[in-house]
Amino acid sequence: MPKINQSQLEIMRHSCGHLMAAAVQKLFPETKFGIGPNIENGFYYDFELPATLTPEFLPKIKKEMKKMIGQNLPFIKKEMPVDEAIKLFKSINQPYKIELLEEMKKQGEKSVSIYQTGDFIDLCRGPHLKSTGEIGAFKLTKIAGAYWRGNEKNKMLTRIYGLAFSHEEELNNHLKVLEEAEKRDHRNLGKELELFSFEEEIGAGLPLWHPKGAFLRHLIENYLYKELNSSGYQWVVTPHIGNINLWKTSGHWNFYRENIYSPIKIDEEEFLLKPMNCPFHIKIYNSKIRSYKELPIRFAEFGTVYRYEKSGVLHGLTRVRGFTQDDAHIWCTLDQLPKEINNLLKDGLKILRRFGFKDFNIFLSTRPEKFTGDPKHWDKAEESLKNALEKSKLNYQIDPGAGVFYGPKIDIKIKDSLGREWQCTTIQVDFNLPEKFELNYINKEGKKEQPIMIHRALLGSLERFIGVLIEHYAGAFPVWLAPIQVRVVPVGSKHIKASQKLARELKEKDIRCEVDDLNETVGYKVRKAEKQKIPYVLVIGDKEIDSKNLTVRIRGKKEMIKMSRKKFEEKIREEIEKKK
Amino acid sequence: MPKINQSQLEIMRHSCGHLMAAAVQKLFPETKFGIGPNIENGFYYDFELPATLTPEFLPKIKKEMKKMIGQNLPFIKKEMPVDEAIKLFKSINQPYKIELLEEMKKQGEKSVSIYQTGDFIDLCRGPHLKSTGEIGAFKLTKIAGAYWRGNEKNKMLTRIYGLAFSHEEELNNHLKVLEEAEKRDHRNLGKELELFSFEEEIGAGLPLWHPKGAFLRHLIENYLYKELNSSGYQWVVTPHIGNINLWKTSGHWNFYRENIYSPIKIDEEEFLLKPMNCPFHIKIYNSKIRSYKELPIRFAEFGTVYRYEKSGVLHGLTRVRGFTQDDAHIWCTLDQLPKEINNLLKDGLKILRRFGFKDFNIFLSTRPEKFTGDPKHWDKAEESLKNALEKSKLNYQIDPGAGVFYGPKIDIKIKDSLGREWQCTTIQVDFNLPEKFELNYINKEGKKEQPIMIHRALLGSLERFIGVLIEHYAGAFPVWLAPIQVRVVPVGSKHIKASQKLARELKEKDIRCEVDDLNETVGYKVRKAEKQKIPYVLVIGDKEIDSKNLTVRIRGKKEMIKMSRKKFEEKIREEIEKKK
Repeated sequence: MPKINQSQLEIMRHSCGHLMAAAVQKLFPETKFGIGPNIENGFYYDFELPATLTPEFLPKIKKEMKKMIGQNLPFIKKEMPVDEAIKLFKSINQPYKIELLEEMKKQGEKSVSIYQTGDFIDLCRGPHLKSTGEIGAFKLTKIAGAYWRGNEKNKMLTRIYGLAFSHEEELNNHLKVLEEAEKRDHRNLGKELELFSFEEEIGAGLPLWHPKGAFLRHLIENYLYKELNSSGYQWVVTPHIGNINLWKTSGHWNFYRENIYSPIKIDEEEFLLKPMNCPFHIKIYNSKIRSYKELPIRFAEFGTVYRYEKSGVLHGLTRVRGFTQDDAHIWCTLDQLPKEINNLLKDGLKILRRFGFKDFNIFLSTRPEKFTGDPKHWDKAEESLKNALEKSKLNYQIDPGAGVFYGPKIDIKIKDSLGREWQCTTIQVDFNLPEKFELNYINKEGKKEQPIMIHRALLGSLERFIGVLIEHYAGAFPVWLAPIQVRVVPVGSKHIKASQKLARELKEKDIRCEVDDLNETVGYKVRKAEKQKIPYVLVIGDKEIDSKNLTVRIRGKKEMIKMSRKKFEEKIREEIEKKK
Repeated sequence: MPKINQSQLEIMRHSCGHLMAAAVQKLFPETKFGIGPNIENGFYYDFELPATLTPEFLPKIKKEMKKMIGQNLPFIKKEMPVDEAIKLFKSINQPYKIELLEEMKKQGEKSVSIYQTGDFIDLCRGPHLKSTGEIGAFKLTKIAGAYWRGNEKNKMLTRIYGLAFSHEEELNNHLKVLEEAEKRDHRNLGKELELFSFEEEIGAGLPLWHPKGAFLRHLIENYLYKELNSSGYQWVVTPHIGNINLWKTSGHWNFYRENIYSPIKIDEEEFLLKPMNCPFHIKIYNSKIRSYKELPIRFAEFGTVYRYEKSGVLHGLTRVRGFTQDDAHIWCTLDQLPKEINNLLKDGLKILRRFGFKDFNIFLSTRPEKFTGDPKHWDKAEESLKNALEKSKLNYQIDPGAGVFYGPKIDIKIKDSLGREWQCTTIQVDFNLPEKFELNYINKEGKKEQPIMIHRALLGSLERFIGVLIEHYAGAFPVWLAPIQVRVVPVGSKHIKASQKLARELKEKDIRCEVDDLNETVGYKVRKAEKQKIPYVLVIGDKEIDSKNLTVRIRGKKEMIKMSRKKFEEKIREEIEKKK
C-alpha cells in the first residue's frame, strides 16, 4: 500500500479525534465537548464528563471506536449560518461549542461548518475523511486534566490523548521509538551514569557537572581545541559579565531582552550576565589596528552564556538557563568568504561525524524582507553558502527569506539513532555588528575597510550536545568518549593486588581504567559495569594471573572471551582511533 | 655597620618626615602643616603652601634638609596640657594642628606631646631620633595633591613623598627595584606581548584574554589538570550563578556581603554571581550517599568567581573583579587529615617550583578566640598542619590566633625575582560548612559521620598568578611557558618557502613556531622578536638552506650561533623539560 502523504495523515488524525469523541458520547451521553485538535503524531480531545475517567476506561473507548470503524460511518459536512449552529448546539446542550460560536459571531463570521459522525455532531472547519472505515492504526495513550481554553479560572476538563498512523506497522514503530526514547532519556541516564545533576537549591536549568560528566566535557573540549587549532583558530577567554552598553550597541538589549537576566549594579553602572560572547570577541578584534594581512582572524571560545528560559520549557541538558557554546567569530573580506564557509562546513561535518552522527538535515536561510547591509553583499554571501553546500554534496533545503536580518545562514540538524532531529551547527554571516561596532582593517591601499563577520557554533552548546550524545548512544558511549573504558574485576580478595597492577599499567598507556575491589560476587560486579555502560570488563582470577591471558567481557555481549594482553590493548587502541 | 632593625628604621623615616617639614618651613615660612605619617619604605607630609610647588623645588628642599643634618639638630620632646598646645599652635598660626588638638580635647585627652627640630614645631606622639645627624639616606620622590583628611570637601593640600633607608646602598637598591618593577609592570607587558587587555566599555577589573594570554592560561590549566589527576583529584564544572540561599546557608551573605554583587531576579527568586565555588562542590558531594570507602573525595575546578573590589584598588591582573581560582575541596576523616595536608603542601610547592619560584614565606594561622567546632579537632588539625610543615623542612612562622573562625590554615607567599612577596597558596581546614550543609558519610559501623572539609587553591587565581609570572620573568617566560617558542625569520622573500617548511616541521614536533614573512630587514625582525621575548629566532638565508645548519639567536644574547637542526631540537626539548 502506498504511504499516504502528510496532509492526508493529518486529516486522518483529526477524523480519529472526532471518532474518539463519538465513542465517548456513546459511553457517556451527557458529555459536554470542548475542543479536539491535532498534535504531533496524533490528537487529543477535551471533555466535561459526568464522572472521573480512569485509564481502565481507555480500552472501552477504543472498542467503541473500532465498532464504528467497522460500521464505516460517513463524516457528513453541513454549512449553516452561525445563528442556526448556535440553535443546534443549544438543542443538544453543548455550552462550550455555543461559547465558541458566540465568539465567532462577535468577530463577524456569518457561516460555519459542522460535521456529523453517527450521532456525534461537532463544530469543525474540517476537512475529514470520507468515512470512519478509512481510519488507520491508532492508540489512546493517556488521560490528563486541562483547563477550558488553558485558563485556570475555567473548569478543569478531561483530556484524552491518542496517536494515529496510517498503518499498524508505523504506529508500532513509533511506540517502539517512544519506549526506546524513554530508556534513553538523558535526564535519567545522567543520574544513573553520574554525569550531571540539577539541584533545586542551586536553581532550575543550572547543571552541576559531576566528575564523569565533566570529564566527558573535557574530552570534547580537548578534541575541538586540537581540531580548531589546526584550522587556524586562536582561542580567547572573556568574562561572564559586561557593561549593559555593549548589548545596547549590538541591539540585543532591544530585540532579545526577554532572554536576558536583570542587570547587576556596580558603582552606579549596569552590567549583564552575558547572553552571548560576540561583543567581547569584537572588543579583542578592535583592541588594535588590523591589517588585511591578518585576515581571516578566527577567535574561538568555550563561552558560557546565560539566557532566560521559562521554567516550564526547561528540559534536562537540552534546554537550560546557562550553557557553554563552542563559539567562534571570524572576520574576513568578502573575497575570503567562500573559502571560509567551505572550511566551516567541512570542519563542522567532520566533527559531527567523529561523534557518530551520519544523517544531517541542512537548511540555507536567505535574505528576509527586512534586512541590513548591501544587497550585493547579501547575494555574494548567499552564493558562498550555496556553493559550499554544493561542494559538500549533501542534500540541503533553501528556506527563502528565513535568514536573520543581519545576514544569511546555514543550520545543520543532526539525526540521532532514533531518527529524531536536533539543531546543532549554525553558521551565520553578519553585516550588522561590524557596522555597529565600527570594525575595520587596513586594506592593501592603506585605507580602512569593514570586514565581514561570521558567527558560528559547530556543536551548538556542550550541554545540549552532550544531552543528545547520551540519548544517541543510550549512554553507551564509543570507547574514545567513555569516561571509564575498562573495569577490572578481581574474582576474590587475593586477586586485588594483581588487578591493581594491571589497572596501573593500562593507565600508563592512557587507557582509562578502574578496579572494582568491593566484596561482591563477580556476576554482580559485571552487571554493575554493564549498567554503567563500561566498554570492557576484565575478570582477574587465578587462571588469568597464571596464564597472562585476559578474560574480557565486551559491553552488550553475554559471553566472556579469552584474549592476550597485547591483543586487548590493540583492540582498545583500534576502537579509540575508529572514526565512525 | 650593623643593619638597624625595623622599628628604628620606622623612627628614622618619621624623623626624616619632620626634617622635610622643617626644611619646607625654612623655604616657605607661611606654610600651614597638615599631617606627615610613615608609609612603606618612607614617609609623606601634607602642606598648605603659599605657592604651587613644582618638582624642580625638591632639590632645594633636599639641600635644606642636608644642611640641617649637618647641624645635627636635636628632636626635642615636650609634654603639655592640650589647652596649652592649642595656645602654642594658635601663636604660630597652624590651623590644621589646632583642628586636631580640638578633636583630641573633645575625646577627653588631657596631655599631648610636641616635638621641636630647629624652628619647626609639630604635634607628634613620637618617638624620634635624638638628632638630625642620625638620619640615613633619603630621597624626595614626588609631589601630589591630597585633600585635608582625605575629604574632597576640604582644601587640597600639597603632599610630598619621600623614601628613607638607613644606608645609601639600601636606598639605591630600592630605587633599582622600583625602576626594574616599572619595566616589569605586567600591565604594560600584557599590552606589549598581547596577552590581555582591559576595555572601559566592558568594565573595570574584567580582563579580556587575547590569544597569547589565553594560551598561557591553557598551558597552566593543562599542567595543573595533569598534575592533579595523578594526585587523585576529580574535576567538576559548576555554574556561575546560584540561588542566594546557598550563601545564606554558608554564612557568606552575612559576613562577606560587601564583596558580593547585587542579586539577579529570576522567577521571583534571587540569584548571585558566585563569589566562591564551595556551595556547588558541596552539592555534588551531597548528591548521593557517601561511604568511608570513597574518602578522601577531592573535587577540583577552574572556577571563575566574581567579587566586588572598589575601583580605586583594582590593579591589572593582580586585583580584579572576576577571576578563575584553581580551586579544590577535599573531604576526609580526621585520621586522613595529616596525609592530605602533607600531600597538599608537597603538590603546592612542586607546582610553584615548576613555575620558577624558589623562595617562600609560609604562615600557619592557629585557632582564634572566636571559633566554631570541637577544640580537640582544632588541636588535631593544627598538629596536622604543623607536622606537614615540619616534614617539608621549610621555614614557617606561626601566626597565633590568626586562623579563620572555621579552621586553621597555611598560607604560602612566593617571592618573585625582585624579592617582592605575593600571597598564592592557601590551605584551609573547615569545621563549619560540613555542619551548615549537613555533610556526612557512612562510617565503618554503618553510622553517619561528619567529614572534615579542606578548601585549597595552589596558585590562588590564574589572573593574579599570571600577573605575578609576567613580572617575575619580565615577560621573558621560560621556554615551556612561552606562547611562541621559535620565530623563523627568512632573510629575503625567496627564503619564505623554506622558512614555512621548517616551521611546519617544528610544529609537528609540538614546538610552537611562527614565520615572520613581512617585508622588513632581518635586523628589525630580530629586534621585534626580542621585544616580544621570543626564546629563539632562526634566521633562514641561502646558507642555512644549503648547509642544513641553523643560525640561532637565543633570547637576550647578542651573537647568533650555528647549530645543527638536531642539536637545536634537543636544546629546545631540554629547555621545555627543565625543572627550575
